Amino acid sequence: MAISTDAIVRVIYGDTDQMGVVYYANYFRYFEFARSELFRARGGSYVRMEQEGFGLPVVEASASYKSPARYEDLLTIRVSVGELRRASMRFDYRVLRDGAPLAQGHTIHACVGPKGKPAGLPDWVVRLLADEPAA
Amino acid sequence: MAISTDAIVRVIYGDTDQMGVVYYANYFRYFEFARSELFRARGGSYVRMEQEGFGLPVVEASASYKSPARYEDLLTIRVSVGELRRASMRFDYRVLRDGAPLAQGHTIHACVGPKGKPAGLPDWVVRLLADEPAA
Amino acid sequence: MAISTDAIVRVIYGDTDQMGVVYYANYFRYFEFARSELFRARGGSYVRMEQEGFGLPVVEASASYKSPARYEDLLTIRVSVGELRRASMRFDYRVLRDGAPLAQGHTIHACVGPKGKPAGLPDWVVRLLADEPAA
Amino acid sequence: MAISTDAIVRVIYGDTDQMGVVYYANYFRYFEFARSELFRARGGSYVRMEQEGFGLPVVEASASYKSPARYEDLLTIRVSVGELRRASMRFDYRVLRDGAPLAQGHTIHACVGPKGKPAGLPDWVVRLLADEPAA
Repeated sequence: MAISTDAIVRVIYGDTDQMGVVYYANYFRYFEFARSELFRARGGSYVRMEQEGFGLPVVEASASYKSPARYEDLLTIRVSVGELRRASMRFDYRVLRDGAPLAQGHTIHACVGPKGKPAGLPDWVVRLLADEPAA
Repeated sequence: MAISTDAIVRVIYGDTDQMGVVYYANYFRYFEFARSELFRARGGSYVRMEQEGFGLPVVEASASYKSPARYEDLLTIRVSVGELRRASMRFDYRVLRDGAPLAQGHTIHACVGPKGKPAGLPDWVVRLLADEPAA
Repeated sequence: MAISTDAIVRVIYGDTDQMGVVYYANYFRYFEFARSELFRARGGSYVRMEQEGFGLPVVEASASYKSPARYEDLLTIRVSVGELRRASMRFDYRVLRDGAPLAQGHTIHACVGPKGKPAGLPDWVVRLLADEPAA
Repeated sequence: MAISTDAIVRVIYGDTDQMGVVYYANYFRYFEFARSELFRARGGSYVRMEQEGFGLPVVEASASYKSPARYEDLLTIRVSVGELRRASMRFDYRVLRDGAPLAQGHTIHACVGPKGKPAGLPDWVVRLLADEPAA
């Protein structure tokens, strides 16, 4: 089972553009909020990574838009760990409104260590985000 | 030869995040600025499309990040028409600083007409963005 | 008693800047979220105003910053109706973290009607946001 | 004569909201761009301040909105040094389109030094931004 969580976002006026829909770039803000919530939902925190000198800069980001989100919509951003490698990882996202899919996307992150150099993911992050073993 | 133009962006504080680099979602704002500049550089305007009841909503957006952009950087966003179809199109982007590539990406747009229905691209847009014939 | 509600915001990476704190302009996004929540908390909706052809454009906005908000902070945006006039209103805001004040501000809004002309606030909005009479 | 410069901004889609006008918070992004341009226009740079361990965090920000800016507008952000004190300063802003005023505002900044403590403005900043003496 992939590790996953649902983050809830209320669309504000500032997220929309003059077409009356959420501006395409802002979905990537929602994605970031969701992956941060995923850390918290698992009992961890992205801040802890930073405090230990690690970071997860985005190396690739993608979204496809099927149906527009609008002002005041209550969106579910369903994030899951798509892939967990030694020094990089992928998150997958689905944006839903009342269960209906509006958009989806992914981000790929490299792990960098104390001096901004490529580094292996800290063990606690791997444990936090890895699949649970079958019982 | 693909139709192309260079848009120039100065990175502001508000574009950066606490990692000291441009936040990944903001590249999509730069991309939008560049494709708008492309219309203008060709003697057209995205506003004219809207006035005629057409729109080019983004159906797919993607970026890959190689090297970070920073506060006060003067970035070149090189945009070109990647593909021009009857009712959709793709723009390709390269982000450069002093000639060095920092990031690249693309967006795919559907054309919608007066009632928000799928529509063919207006003729003047096709002429504006189509390859020049060999002389 | 002034009408008031608390909106909760989690600070994301995209809200911060390279000083490691929330970028000053983003507080105004928080303020907007809070006043929208105030409508909802009172059983109304800003969307209903729009559907009836009314709007509340901002004519003045101000914030003062005492102590910075940071990534992952869980902020309370306490919004209250500062003044309710025939065709305009003021909202007051306080930004709190763990009860401690970080910032405060206000916005003043004019009411505009169906043709973008100045208009009196709809009666239901006045009832929604007016002080409760003493029992 | 107050020190002043004009910064030019092209409004993008991402700056607008569903009312079809520039979202009120985004004027503060324009203000920041303008004050950064003012440093450059005077032959200095805000980056240099940072490299020397200084910062100018915003302690107060205010804007009043008279007439809306719209997509593709080419705006002039006229910034001037409103007040220059030992350890703080004020910038004043006017937003113009074709010479007509759309909005105005100000920001007040405290100067902080190497350890985030209040500090006097560096001498070169004072020289950069102070009124020219009458000839």
